[in-house]
Amino acid sequence: MPETAPSQIPVAVVGPTGYTGLELIELLCRHPRLRPAYLASARAEPARMTREFPRLAGRLPAGLAPDTEPINHDAIAGRCRLAFLCLPHEAAMEHAPQLLRRGVKVVDLSAAYRLKDPAVYAAAYGHAHTDPAGLARAVYGLPELFGQRLSGAALVANPGCYPTAAALTIAPLLRDGLAEPSSPIVYAASGVSGAGREPKPHLTLAEAGENFSAYGIGVHRHQPEIEQSLRWAAPDQAAAVRVLFLPHLLPIERGILETIVLEPARAGLTTADVTDTLRRAYAGHPLVVVRDEAPAVRDAQRTARVHVNARLVGGRIVAVAAIDNLAKGAAAQAVQNANILMGIDPLAGVE
Amino acid sequence: MPETAPSQIPVAVVGPTGYTGLELIELLCRHPRLRPAYLASARAEPARMTREFPRLAGRLPAGLAPDTEPINHDAIAGRCRLAFLCLPHEAAMEHAPQLLRRGVKVVDLSAAYRLKDPAVYAAAYGHAHTDPAGLARAVYGLPELFGQRLSGAALVANPGCYPTAAALTIAPLLRDGLAEPSSPIVYAASGVSGAGREPKPHLTLAEAGENFSAYGIGVHRHQPEIEQSLRWAAPDQAAAVRVLFLPHLLPIERGILETIVLEPARAGLTTADVTDTLRRAYAGHPLVVVRDEAPAVRDAQRTARVHVNARLVGGRIVAVAAIDNLAKGAAAQAVQNANILMGIDPLAGVE
Amino acid sequence: MPETAPSQIPVAVVGPTGYTGLELIELLCRHPRLRPAYLASARAEPARMTREFPRLAGRLPAGLAPDTEPINHDAIAGRCRLAFLCLPHEAAMEHAPQLLRRGVKVVDLSAAYRLKDPAVYAAAYGHAHTDPAGLARAVYGLPELFGQRLSGAALVANPGCYPTAAALTIAPLLRDGLAEPSSPIVYAASGVSGAGREPKPHLTLAEAGENFSAYGIGVHRHQPEIEQSLRWAAPDQAAAVRVLFLPHLLPIERGILETIVLEPARAGLTTADVTDTLRRAYAGHPLVVVRDEAPAVRDAQRTARVHVNARLVGGRIVAVAAIDNLAKGAAAQAVQNANILMGIDPLAGVE
Amino acid sequence: MPETAPSQIPVAVVGPTGYTGLELIELLCRHPRLRPAYLASARAEPARMTREFPRLAGRLPAGLAPDTEPINHDAIAGRCRLAFLCLPHEAAMEHAPQLLRRGVKVVDLSAAYRLKDPAVYAAAYGHAHTDPAGLARAVYGLPELFGQRLSGAALVANPGCYPTAAALTIAPLLRDGLAEPSSPIVYAASGVSGAGREPKPHLTLAEAGENFSAYGIGVHRHQPEIEQSLRWAAPDQAAAVRVLFLPHLLPIERGILETIVLEPARAGLTTADVTDTLRRAYAGHPLVVVRDEAPAVRDAQRTARVHVNARLVGGRIVAVAAIDNLAKGAAAQAVQNANILMGIDPLAGVE
Repeated sequence: MPETAPSQIPVAVVGPTGYTGLELIELLCRHPRLRPAYLASARAEPARMTREFPRLAGRLPAGLAPDTEPINHDAIAGRCRLAFLCLPHEAAMEHAPQLLRRGVKVVDLSAAYRLKDPAVYAAAYGHAHTDPAGLARAVYGLPELFGQRLSGAALVANPGCYPTAAALTIAPLLRDGLAEPSSPIVYAASGVSGAGREPKPHLTLAEAGENFSAYGIGVHRHQPEIEQSLRWAAPDQAAAVRVLFLPHLLPIERGILETIVLEPARAGLTTADVTDTLRRAYAGHPLVVVRDEAPAVRDAQRTARVHVNARLVGGRIVAVAAIDNLAKGAAAQAVQNANILMGIDPLAGVE
Repeated sequence: MPETAPSQIPVAVVGPTGYTGLELIELLCRHPRLRPAYLASARAEPARMTREFPRLAGRLPAGLAPDTEPINHDAIAGRCRLAFLCLPHEAAMEHAPQLLRRGVKVVDLSAAYRLKDPAVYAAAYGHAHTDPAGLARAVYGLPELFGQRLSGAALVANPGCYPTAAALTIAPLLRDGLAEPSSPIVYAASGVSGAGREPKPHLTLAEAGENFSAYGIGVHRHQPEIEQSLRWAAPDQAAAVRVLFLPHLLPIERGILETIVLEPARAGLTTADVTDTLRRAYAGHPLVVVRDEAPAVRDAQRTARVHVNARLVGGRIVAVAAIDNLAKGAAAQAVQNANILMGIDPLAGVE
Repeated sequence: MPETAPSQIPVAVVGPTGYTGLELIELLCRHPRLRPAYLASARAEPARMTREFPRLAGRLPAGLAPDTEPINHDAIAGRCRLAFLCLPHEAAMEHAPQLLRRGVKVVDLSAAYRLKDPAVYAAAYGHAHTDPAGLARAVYGLPELFGQRLSGAALVANPGCYPTAAALTIAPLLRDGLAEPSSPIVYAASGVSGAGREPKPHLTLAEAGENFSAYGIGVHRHQPEIEQSLRWAAPDQAAAVRVLFLPHLLPIERGILETIVLEPARAGLTTADVTDTLRRAYAGHPLVVVRDEAPAVRDAQRTARVHVNARLVGGRIVAVAAIDNLAKGAAAQAVQNANILMGIDPLAGVE
Repeated sequence: MPETAPSQIPVAVVGPTGYTGLELIELLCRHPRLRPAYLASARAEPARMTREFPRLAGRLPAGLAPDTEPINHDAIAGRCRLAFLCLPHEAAMEHAPQLLRRGVKVVDLSAAYRLKDPAVYAAAYGHAHTDPAGLARAVYGLPELFGQRLSGAALVANPGCYPTAAALTIAPLLRDGLAEPSSPIVYAASGVSGAGREPKPHLTLAEAGENFSAYGIGVHRHQPEIEQSLRWAAPDQAAAVRVLFLPHLLPIERGILETIVLEPARAGLTTADVTDTLRRAYAGHPLVVVRDEAPAVRDAQRTARVHVNARLVGGRIVAVAAIDNLAKGAAAQAVQNANILMGIDPLAGVE
């Protein structure tokens, strides 16, 4: 299995010691075409990967160095055709242009290139964007909604976890004129891996376990990202789009559930109407599963799928979507985007 | 402590082998005035309480029989002045009138006496109400909102867990004219003990653990109960009251968080306005804690308190309430109601 | 990926609606050579697989029937070259001979064919063995210890989860004369999926969550299975082998940790001695990872690996092994065995 | 309830912002005689207790300052008759003598005064003992084993969580000559609150959740503490006492289970023999519950009880004990010791 067949495409993972890095490496270890060839870390000391994550023992491909290597742009370019960046936003803006310049395609899992308007980015993330040229050419990698933009792209902004599920659920309803663009309330709940690997007081098992809480009410950075996707998906209604985003922290490791309430845009709307719209929107997109019943987090966990259900309840549209924040919400979607950039089967090795 | 002082009031727990029964017994074991004197079960065989719940070993009061006894109305009346009913709804309607007739006051923890309109009850619970006379005299035991009704009561309908938190949060906002009565959306999430002790496929750790799901969307029985409280609290707006209730199942044992979105009833409403209304409403009510930050489930767990926070977000009111479904959402509130019926300190032994 | 290439080998999963069945199907869905072609269930009504397990939606291979089919031996033989049995022990003994007779190789995940002595089987499982001929020809499929027996086999008894980790840890220490064969104490703890999918009172989240308990002390069926492996591995000490097995139930979905204490067989034994023995034993066996530190359940979870560490502590040998009960402890090992039976790469598609 | 009756005894909690501090405060808030009158913290800034622990909102006694106060020995002595120290070991050694000198009795929940031999202390804790005089007068507060020592004591070393359960289980078996003193193997598993409130990488929900691991194998500081108790309990066998202690980390908040294996000291020992010994040992001690079945963590959680079961299995003694690490393993036992020091009912307010 790990023999370096000529058909294999060597890739780098830059920032492999966080949870999205680990998830990506586990996916790449069994990917039929992409082969991890360079694990690059900004840490002062090289990290032995099987010490960071003992679960990788015996599973890394034969040729891969056991320790992380420095983020050396030339070395990465010498060995790899594509790099996944699992870095803080600021670091991503620093390394992406260097890699692109050397002919390495980039799938960036940070938020650095997600928000097209640098002012919106600065407001949401609290610092100026330092690579506006990169931002201008970056493509937002949500293939089921904006797949046509990805052809010929070299830099992909991999969407956020919450925004992937929210946009996939709401966009078709706006596009087909079923829901009021100013109405969406996204009640969302995520497992703790979404908050990263850094230990923080509210993330310990003694605090986060047997608990549930709201956070970032009305100020979460994913709210403008969701709105941007909806404006793109329904450009004629762009000015009216407004989303209320209410994230919560679940006492689980991974997975997201979003329960979304919208006002119908016209009278007499039925459950069949909204279901039909969703089914048509995702007819050729196997990673979005349109369901007749509300999905649970477990349905999507450790899969590359988003499960969606929608219905009319007391005159409102109520939709429920499940996604794995580390898979379709991060690493699996990054692999999907990389597959597209490399011109191979978009779904190869995504789960 | 367990000596039978003359000042102690003997009470019965009818249906002591479920989770609310256990919670009630644990509270009563350290209650300064109420003393469990009769544990009555409908089971064919007596249940040894310390076998049902080994955690009770050594903690039951000295005089109490170690096994459950039959539901014998005369025997209960001979020994107890008040009975807590932790029974299925139908059984509660059967036993409550028998006990009342014998002079035993009743706090019913089922839903049997919560919905004043027998037709609403029948629609929500799927069977006709068999004790309309009892229903007529029953008092809904939510002391912080409707405490004045409890004076002289003999039969108290102990409110549901979700409705307690929802009504306490929304009622003052309607009463003071701050929120539109047709607007409340109650996103709610509860620990699994709310579903009872019966093992069911979706309640196993292998299914409910590391999971989160919506259920009963638009058809949950607590929706009319919440609406009833809001109509009582704001009678002038009763006709307009409409609640969208969206319950979810949390992978935890106990505790509820409700995130509630409302439309303001007037322009210019501020966070200070809604906070002031809540603070004034609960000034003399220590079991409702009005907070400046959104509470977490853990804050209320195993306490008799409801923690509430409300704010303006993007032109909407967003409130967050935390409650323990077995404590203030069931047993602790039942003790509070029993204290009131017995004329002792309402907060004695509630936590 | 799911195209039916001529090089693919069609296989059946008999009993696909339990947890090992699900795990097996998920592995087979991405196996490079084995392709699930028949899902056979004893249920009266066909089960729609994506309703049983919504997480399979969109992931089953194109040609596979969406519903389970009856356990028809001829039909299975007409379509498949190998069958995995995920059935109760008694049912496995009924179907295995029928399939073998029709030329279908069998990997049995029940305990039906694990204990070579029918009397030991009857004592452990409480019923007589009904297929002694099958028992005689069955091969115990623990490739890292007894791989040579598998060549030419048609019926493989897939080992139990606890016994796989225990035997792999202890056998080399006995074989090399490092540990007393009568001394092993196996403290073991397993996630709840090991208890199956049937809801039972002690398996609900409200009971098993935030809990930990011992069970089956001294009477667990896996004790004779562990002892059998040790006798096979160290035949000269067979008469002295005696294991004390102490299983516990963990509040997690999957994974096992075993902490094993043994008396050294000779004075002066060092940590280096026991580590060397383990490393030599598993030099060519990548699924056993010999570690310098004690492994955690998480290290092995959702991998096909067993992680093992051993050391001298206060004059005793203390070993710690981690395994995933559904993977190397069941489905992944079954795939490994099937690969061997079919003459393909033993590790293909095991994780 | 919180009125300062003349019969109430004011006490201090020094170090109230950790998990044992919180647990102690919750117990004291409903204690019939002890009343928290001073919360002293070493932090530079006063901590608002209801911000540290929102669950305390509305529950602290009326007269208590809402913020922590400095650790001022004179001020504490001016207001309190006893102080609970919930501090790091080094800090406890600093403050205990100061408080004792001022006439304040001390129950120390750290390990500072547990190990009578300063050399053993230094070896286990890695620093010299700085209060040997205090160590000499301190009494080890395990009332069920060494209650007679507590009469007249002023400084109590509150035992460790693991050692409390282990000593209570093993001591009677040694004392009655049923078990070999060199044989005990204590396989123990604790919830994460035992590791304190400081966030550490291995304590996050993403790491500790769905996980189980061994730690401190053979080097845990509680091993000498257990051995000390056994030597005291069976002084004639003191020289032979040797314990192998194997702690594990459970994915739960609180609670400990210990599964203990011992070699019988004489042939023909029966389950009845070991059960009788335990029952006789704890006849007058309601906090030790001797059971006929193995207890679970849940049985003891949030109670002041230790549940114990023992049996003969394959020629060995296997005992299982459950305890709550924060209750009988820390705060509840501290309250029990304080009650004894103050001459009131030893069990008042322990649960």
